Amino acid sequence: MRVDADSSAAPDAGANPAHLFAAALIDELTRAGVREVCVCPGSRSTALAIAAAQHPGLRCWSQIDERSAGFFALGAAKATRAPTALICTSGTAAANFHPAVIEAFHAHVPLIVLSADRPPELREWGAGQTIDQVRLYGTHVRWFAETAVPDADPQMLNYAREVGCRAVAEACGPPAGPVHLNLPFRDPLEPTSASAESEIAATDRGGQAYTRVCRGVQTPQSADVERLVELAQTCERGVITCGPMDAEPEFRAAVADLAAALGWPIFADPISQLRSGAHNPGAPVLANADLFLRDERVAAALDPQVVLRFGATPTSKSQRLWLERCRPEHLILVEPEAAWNDPSHLASEILRVDPLALCAALNRRVTRSQAESPWLQRVLRAEHCTAEVVERCIADEGELFEPRAIRELAEGLPDGAILYVSNSMPVRDLDAFLPASSRPLRVLANRGANGIDGMISSALGAAASQSKPVVLLTGDLALLHDVGALQAAQRHSLNLSVVVFDNDGGGIFSYLPAADRVDPEVFETHFRTPHGANLGDIVAGFGAGFERASSWEHFRAAFKSALATPGVSVVEIPVDRDRSVAHHRKIDRRVSEALALQFGNSRT
Amino acid sequence: MRVDADSSAAPDAGANPAHLFAAALIDELTRAGVREVCVCPGSRSTALAIAAAQHPGLRCWSQIDERSAGFFALGAAKATRAPTALICTSGTAAANFHPAVIEAFHAHVPLIVLSADRPPELREWGAGQTIDQVRLYGTHVRWFAETAVPDADPQMLNYAREVGCRAVAEACGPPAGPVHLNLPFRDPLEPTSASAESEIAATDRGGQAYTRVCRGVQTPQSADVERLVELAQTCERGVITCGPMDAEPEFRAAVADLAAALGWPIFADPISQLRSGAHNPGAPVLANADLFLRDERVAAALDPQVVLRFGATPTSKSQRLWLERCRPEHLILVEPEAAWNDPSHLASEILRVDPLALCAALNRRVTRSQAESPWLQRVLRAEHCTAEVVERCIADEGELFEPRAIRELAEGLPDGAILYVSNSMPVRDLDAFLPASSRPLRVLANRGANGIDGMISSALGAAASQSKPVVLLTGDLALLHDVGALQAAQRHSLNLSVVVFDNDGGGIFSYLPAADRVDPEVFETHFRTPHGANLGDIVAGFGAGFERASSWEHFRAAFKSALATPGVSVVEIPVDRDRSVAHHRKIDRRVSEALALQFGNSRT
Repeated sequence: MRVDADSSAAPDAGANPAHLFAAALIDELTRAGVREVCVCPGSRSTALAIAAAQHPGLRCWSQIDERSAGFFALGAAKATRAPTALICTSGTAAANFHPAVIEAFHAHVPLIVLSADRPPELREWGAGQTIDQVRLYGTHVRWFAETAVPDADPQMLNYAREVGCRAVAEACGPPAGPVHLNLPFRDPLEPTSASAESEIAATDRGGQAYTRVCRGVQTPQSADVERLVELAQTCERGVITCGPMDAEPEFRAAVADLAAALGWPIFADPISQLRSGAHNPGAPVLANADLFLRDERVAAALDPQVVLRFGATPTSKSQRLWLERCRPEHLILVEPEAAWNDPSHLASEILRVDPLALCAALNRRVTRSQAESPWLQRVLRAEHCTAEVVERCIADEGELFEPRAIRELAEGLPDGAILYVSNSMPVRDLDAFLPASSRPLRVLANRGANGIDGMISSALGAAASQSKPVVLLTGDLALLHDVGALQAAQRHSLNLSVVVFDNDGGGIFSYLPAADRVDPEVFETHFRTPHGANLGDIVAGFGAGFERASSWEHFRAAFKSALATPGVSVVEIPVDRDRSVAHHRKIDRRVSEALALQFGNSRT
Repeated sequence: MRVDADSSAAPDAGANPAHLFAAALIDELTRAGVREVCVCPGSRSTALAIAAAQHPGLRCWSQIDERSAGFFALGAAKATRAPTALICTSGTAAANFHPAVIEAFHAHVPLIVLSADRPPELREWGAGQTIDQVRLYGTHVRWFAETAVPDADPQMLNYAREVGCRAVAEACGPPAGPVHLNLPFRDPLEPTSASAESEIAATDRGGQAYTRVCRGVQTPQSADVERLVELAQTCERGVITCGPMDAEPEFRAAVADLAAALGWPIFADPISQLRSGAHNPGAPVLANADLFLRDERVAAALDPQVVLRFGATPTSKSQRLWLERCRPEHLILVEPEAAWNDPSHLASEILRVDPLALCAALNRRVTRSQAESPWLQRVLRAEHCTAEVVERCIADEGELFEPRAIRELAEGLPDGAILYVSNSMPVRDLDAFLPASSRPLRVLANRGANGIDGMISSALGAAASQSKPVVLLTGDLALLHDVGALQAAQRHSLNLSVVVFDNDGGGIFSYLPAADRVDPEVFETHFRTPHGANLGDIVAGFGAGFERASSWEHFRAAFKSALATPGVSVVEIPVDRDRSVAHHRKIDRRVSEALALQFGNSRT
């Protein structure tokens, strides 16, 4: 709650121009597709909040904490694949959106931030709650605009409407991403008794968007398609990698068909949407690449001529190291959002085309099937051998640990659920241990900036904005980082099931080289950061359910109950960090041993 | 916890240049006065975290949530009046500091942000946890520097040391404020077994600062002093206003002497440090100006010729409106930090001089005392009459409400305590109802950007960094906004007493004109935002004590117990918002009625 508290009563002659401006702008946002908006309380933003709250086409989520609001809107935009808006007052309120804005920028999520501001004559003059909001998010927006101070000129409403249309268009891209409108409002801030709705109707184009925005499809040029087809049909050793992307069914089907036709395996990131769901059953979709590529001998033996990548940089570190080691002659990145995701600096070709259009064009032209090629058989042997080893390791292990938890989770998830997964260890474990499956599952993660902030809020936004069940898989630190977000769940009666791997701190650090090289006390205090917090007590304070699993049976029952219980339910899987590290390393070792029989022994 | 997890083992030939650079930089920060540093876990920041943790001159506060860390460092810097550092890894981590950085900028608090970053070749290439950190805080820093990627050149250490010295110098100003160093580190990130300490010793200047920075005092020029003395001695109707400032004893004594000599009243903001403490007992220090200036007739009758202001824009809205109404011929602002705090655009003179030096110079020259002037008597009549009315209103009222709570709090605070007060209603109530007193009390608030974010963290930072007891006075929304910060209190066993006015939402909105003009449902949902949260349950989850006061006697006992109990103890004062508004308005009315007898009736 942030207040300027210095507005004074206005004479009641017509609607307040600030409210007309806000009403026209908000009206246009809804026509362009915005359905969800997070409203953070404040005084300077009065006109925006009222316009949003009174618009029948919007669902308004009141949020006390702007940082949580930012991630809530991000999660909603991701889950609904629609632009989502954020409203806040002046001051540090808008700065609290910054982490979510950065994530949205890198993950190409259409967020529209509407920050109210003081008018120019009050900026940098010591007025309360006034900061420099101009370009507050720096380079992390697709469009920034400082709007005019609303006045009584009716032309102002044409401008407000077109700003609304343009904000959505810029946010939706390509490239998609956040837009920041900084909106100065002069006192008085409160509405008059006149109706803004009737006054803005004059500029209404009969329920249509004020400015219709038509986007083309980035269709690949035929010469490029020919070249790629030629390449694909002459290179046996090809791989399709699908990195993090929110692939829709049409693309999934098309890329699976392409892989089947070419006989190229798909290395499917857990957040690519390719690993689960019923696409072409003949397509070689792999789930174990992260594991088998950890073995250097295997990675060297699986030496591709062509890698065609869709989506962002894959989660798998072993996949990155494999590319750096093999240096494929053709590393072709499909980048429809004009990104350049190539931290290894190996790309031979960037295709700024629509992924579906590209797959469709290639599928129309590809004739020769290499489905039975020795290359594919070799890759599939690594895949199947790894899957078998993992299966055995997991079956052997009665103790609670992450790899088996991933399997249990995958089995317990309802069809069509959304799994929101936190960065750090959960997404890595998901990459390594989520099996391929024909059951539909949508996996979301904040892989733009890979932060662990805003996880609960992101999942709540996803849960609030659509009807599918949402499950958050997180570590204990990410849970604690955003635990205040549970307030919003309570206020809005939102449903969310949370599975938390609790290893009392930052388990991932135990996997780093630094773990052995840093003074143990410094390592504990500043890297591992055991917090000793009782997650159950903390989440109970926010009215959330909590269960600490003591066995796999217990976990299954608790998870089932969490899914069936309204509100937020947290199921904790307590993990001993040292034993967990040992378990993970044991799996790696067993995979290596099994693969050594086929690919030679890399670990002596 | 944020991790890149892609560093690889380094050969052990000498210390890692990244660690040498970090060790030299951190060493210099401590020589320049940094004593407290918040360290947020991460991998890219390994060298910085280790250097800080191993430096004997630093206290390192491990913090999981960077937003909380930012405000914790802010509170520590304010409480200790010393530059304080922040360390984080790459990605959104640094963006979470943004709100605290903005507050530090506007409040002139020396914060030094050290953000680790990927080296240039990995930025904007889709590497994990990589955002654009260059000038991340935009215009809200005193100095930004992107440092060089550390390499083995020994000259690099001279540079690292001088960067450290300069960072502190720039942060301490004037103008003081935050500094952002963005520090790229290339793999490997972990230390070698070689000792960084011995290798950086070569550039050590025998325990002295590498570069000593000498600051002058902004001494006023004699012609300006003469002019002011002339003005002061010819104008009877003068007022000294002290806005928010962390005035030290010497300044307080000097300005009190000046006021006593000139016979000018001091309108003492609650955060000016003038309202409490033993300065010149003959100085007319006023505590009730905010209340009596609310009466328009009184405000008009107290028409000053000269207003000499120290500190930032006063908290009091009625004082601002009084100046705008009276338009004093001479509005003289003392702005040592080169700010220009004049939202009403009335300043006739800006003095960029040291406030103490100015007072001392004036005191040496002022001869004529106007201590008995009719003007001063008139102002003091308003002050005393208001004080009496408030005293009676408070004594009449057995119900729990804020004005009396402020009195009870002031009486219950131990001598020399720090009271950290939240923005929104608490600071306004403190302004209106904190009586003048000779007992020492230090009041801190985040009046740079006036946000309600980071209040618990700020107070915890103050409590952690010095030995005086700290009490936080906050509303329920500010408490909830930063409630996750209680984790840090638990982890570090910090002591803090919290008094929370709980009116279930944003009480301040009930005082705004919008309250009567907005659809009641919209007003409730998006302005008042009742959250229904059980504060007791929530804080108990973090191991904090909680007591809900049911009477003044109960409050006194609970507050006393909170002060005596280790850890965090929260004492809630439940307030009915509508009755609270009525109580506040009744006091205003009674003050007006009493003053009408002397100044004419402004409210009919």
